[in-house]
Formats: sequence, C-alpha cells, structure tokens
Amino acid sequence: MDGAPPAASPAGLSAYVAVSQMLGLTLLATTGAWLGRYRGGVAWHSPLQFNIHPLCMVLGMVFLQALLVYRVFRHEAKRSTKALHALLHGLALLIALVGIIAVFESHRTKGIPDMYSLHSWCGMAAFVLYLLQWLLGCGFFLLPGTSFSLRSRYKPHHVFFGIALFVLSIIACLLGITEMLLFNIRDSYSLFVPEGVLANTLGVLLVAFGLVVGYVLTRDDWKRPPLAEELALSMDFKTLTEGESPGGGTQ
Amino acid sequence: MDGAPPAASPAGLSAYVAVSQMLGLTLLATTGAWLGRYRGGVAWHSPLQFNIHPLCMVLGMVFLQALLVYRVFRHEAKRSTKALHALLHGLALLIALVGIIAVFESHRTKGIPDMYSLHSWCGMAAFVLYLLQWLLGCGFFLLPGTSFSLRSRYKPHHVFFGIALFVLSIIACLLGITEMLLFNIRDSYSLFVPEGVLANTLGVLLVAFGLVVGYVLTRDDWKRPPLAEELALSMDFKTLTEGESPGGGTQ
Repeated sequence: MDGAPPAASPAGLSAYVAVSQMLGLTLLATTGAWLGRYRGGVAWHSPLQFNIHPLCMVLGMVFLQALLVYRVFRHEAKRSTKALHALLHGLALLIALVGIIAVFESHRTKGIPDMYSLHSWCGMAAFVLYLLQWLLGCGFFLLPGTSFSLRSRYKPHHVFFGIALFVLSIIACLLGITEMLLFNIRDSYSLFVPEGVLANTLGVLLVAFGLVVGYVLTRDDWKRPPLAEELALSMDFKTLTEGESPGGGTQ
Repeated sequence: MDGAPPAASPAGLSAYVAVSQMLGLTLLATTGAWLGRYRGGVAWHSPLQFNIHPLCMVLGMVFLQALLVYRVFRHEAKRSTKALHALLHGLALLIALVGIIAVFESHRTKGIPDMYSLHSWCGMAAFVLYLLQWLLGCGFFLLPGTSFSLRSRYKPHHVFFGIALFVLSIIACLLGITEMLLFNIRDSYSLFVPEGVLANTLGVLLVAFGLVVGYVLTRDDWKRPPLAEELALSMDFKTLTEGESPGGGTQ
C-alpha cells in the first residue's frame, strides 16, 4: 500500500494449491470418463438423465466448493475475496441443484422410489445444510448491518461447518459410487473389471482431494493474514461494538 | 501444584464430550441390534464370522480412536495422558485387526475375492495408515531420545493425520453399510424396510459422532493448555535444542 513489495505467499502453499487443483481436474475427467465410456454418456431428456447427477454433484458439491479462495487471493482486498467466495459457492449450489433435479426426474421416469438409501440421506443433508450455510454466510458477512462482534463469534463455526460439509459431500459421492457399482456391475465387480477399478480410483481421488484441500485449509501458518488497513478498521469496529459507545452491545 | 484450586474445564466442553460418548455408545448398540436382529448375530467358526467384521471395525476404528484423551484429562500430567492415548489407540488397532482377519477368513470360506471394492480400498488404507501413525507417534513422542524441536514440528502433522484417519475410518464404515445393504436387501431396500432404515440410522449416527468429536478436537479454546511445569521444561529444552549449546541442531 505504501510502496512496499507485495508480500509473498508462504513456502509450499502454492505447490499444495496446484496439486489440489490438478487432483480436482483429474477427478472431473475421471467422472467424465466413467460416465462416457461405461455408462453411455449424459443427456437430459433420455434414459441417460441419471448420469447428469454424478457429474453435477462432483462438479458442484466437491470441485467448486470454493474453499481455497482465502488462501489463494490472500493479498487482495477482503471485500472482493468475500464476494468471490459467495459467488463460487452460489454457482456450486446451482450446479448441485441441477444434479438433484436430474436424479429425481430420472427416478420418476423409471418408477424408482426416492430418498431410501444412506447415500440419499447423506447427500440431501449435505445439500440442505450447504444451502443454509451459504444463506447464513451471506447474512452474517455480506449484509452491512451485522456487528463486528457477532461476525467474529460466528466465523469459527462458519469455517468448521464449511469443512464438515465439504467432507460430507465427499462422503455422499463415495456412497453414490458404491451404489452405482453395485446396481450396475454387481456380479463382475469382484473380478476387478475395468469399470470397477476406474470408479474405485475416482473414489481414491476424491479422498485425496479432500485430504489436500483439508490440509491447506487447516494449516495455521497458511491462514490469510489480515491486511494492515483491515486490522486498523477492525480495531475501530471492536472499540465501537465492545466499548461503552451508544452502539455497544448491538447484536 | 502450589495449593491453587484445580483449573476448571472450559464451559461446554464436558457437555460436548458427554454427547460424543452417548453417541458412541448408541452407535455400538445400533450395530449390535442390526447384526443381532437382522443378520443372525456373531460367531467365529460359523457362517456368521463375517458379522464380527462390522462390529470390530465400529468398535476399534471409530469408537475407540481415543482422540478426546487430551481434552478430557486436560489437567493430568502429560506423560500419563500420552501413555493412555498410545494404549487406547493400540487396543483399537488390535480390535480392528481381529475384524480384518474375520472378513478375510469369511471370504476364504465362502470363496469371495478380497480387496476389490471401494470399501475395502478405503478401509485397508485407513487401517495401514492408522498403524503407521501409531508407530510414528510412539517413535516421536514416547521414545526419550527425540528432540523437542523435532517433536514440535511433527505434532501438527500427527494431529491433522489423526483427524483425517478418523474421518477415513468413518467413511469406510459408511461404505461398508451400503455394501452390506445392497448385498443383503437390494430388492426391498427401496421399500423402507426396517433393516434398511436401521442401518441408514447407524450411518447418520456415525456422521453425527464424527461431527461432534471433530468439533471438540478442533475448537481452539478447548485445546489442552500446557501445565506450568511443562512450560518451564519445554523452554529449557527449546533453549538447549535451538540455542548455541553443544547439543543444538540435533534432530
């Protein structure tokens, strides 16, 4: 801000972020390869409508859960990073919604009941809580009226539940992979047929992606440090909200 | 130590620990109910040998992963807490090993191939890495020769991988539940039969257990504070290992 050289990112962070993104792209490609090569591809108004479901859920609920925004754009203004964080999560939710509509419509066409499996229970819980987390996040961090003290108290819960919902989304995907394999290749799965091995590999990639993203997110010295002007501003707010000023105690 | 009243645990911690233990006992009871009521119970030398597998894995790899020892015994000497931590994890590993032998023997008797499913890949990875984590933990934290500086650098990785392996163990259990249901009640699962609902509920309990334990473990202000004598001791070690003393730099 005052002519000082831009602060560098911590050693190793960029490498881990790069690995996470490569893993993310690989798992999207693997999902595409599985659906394209062994499940006939995807199409909305056809018996292939179901296949839109796994593709959208891996893309929306896993790859696009934009959890690394604060690590990657660590030297940008917080307001822009926040907006990007909210936008990417909103996009992820929209894509996931398309995936959910696809499976409900496909079930309706084929006369299959909904919401009976552990996969559907975990997946629906992940989606509904993720939507709730997004709405709460917008309310607490984007609405201008929320007090600094309330934001500070909510933030650790937002971070914890963000990571927990990301993990739950991965869990739902893994359960979905197992369901698809046991419905489609139950008799040949144990013979290590290529489709089974490919789908298992997709599962391992999902776990690895979660592990790398989780590591980047939870490493203390990789957290986004507040910029100098944010520190000054937050001290002002803190004085205003915690001190004996007329606005004190507003929550 | 000097007649001061014993320090209290942070508000809320005991309640969360109690909830986690109640959830843990409930999920053990639910596993027992599922196996006893719908799967014929457990026995080693019989076709029921397989059922020992889910029981041992839920008990060993989930319930007994003694992750809360440092939160519960926060005012005990670190040496005793460490020994208890290592012992409980060792017991968990032994029980898990019995569960793994049970499924391999059961597969051999029935002529079913091993290690082809995503459940087996995730489960075996969780067990092998958990054993490795235990061996590394013993090496770093129980062997007297390891330097303070090396222990300090390894500790955050031990904590991260401990939580990650706990989550991976829960994932393996959830995949196992889905497999068991699709192998045993594939045609009636979608009719919301009681066995399906019970096993799904077990899955939800596993997720809830992971969530509560994860929350207790990662909440910053619930971490075990070092005792006064540990702080003094660690400062001495730090001076010895990081300073210009003859022993400096030993790792």
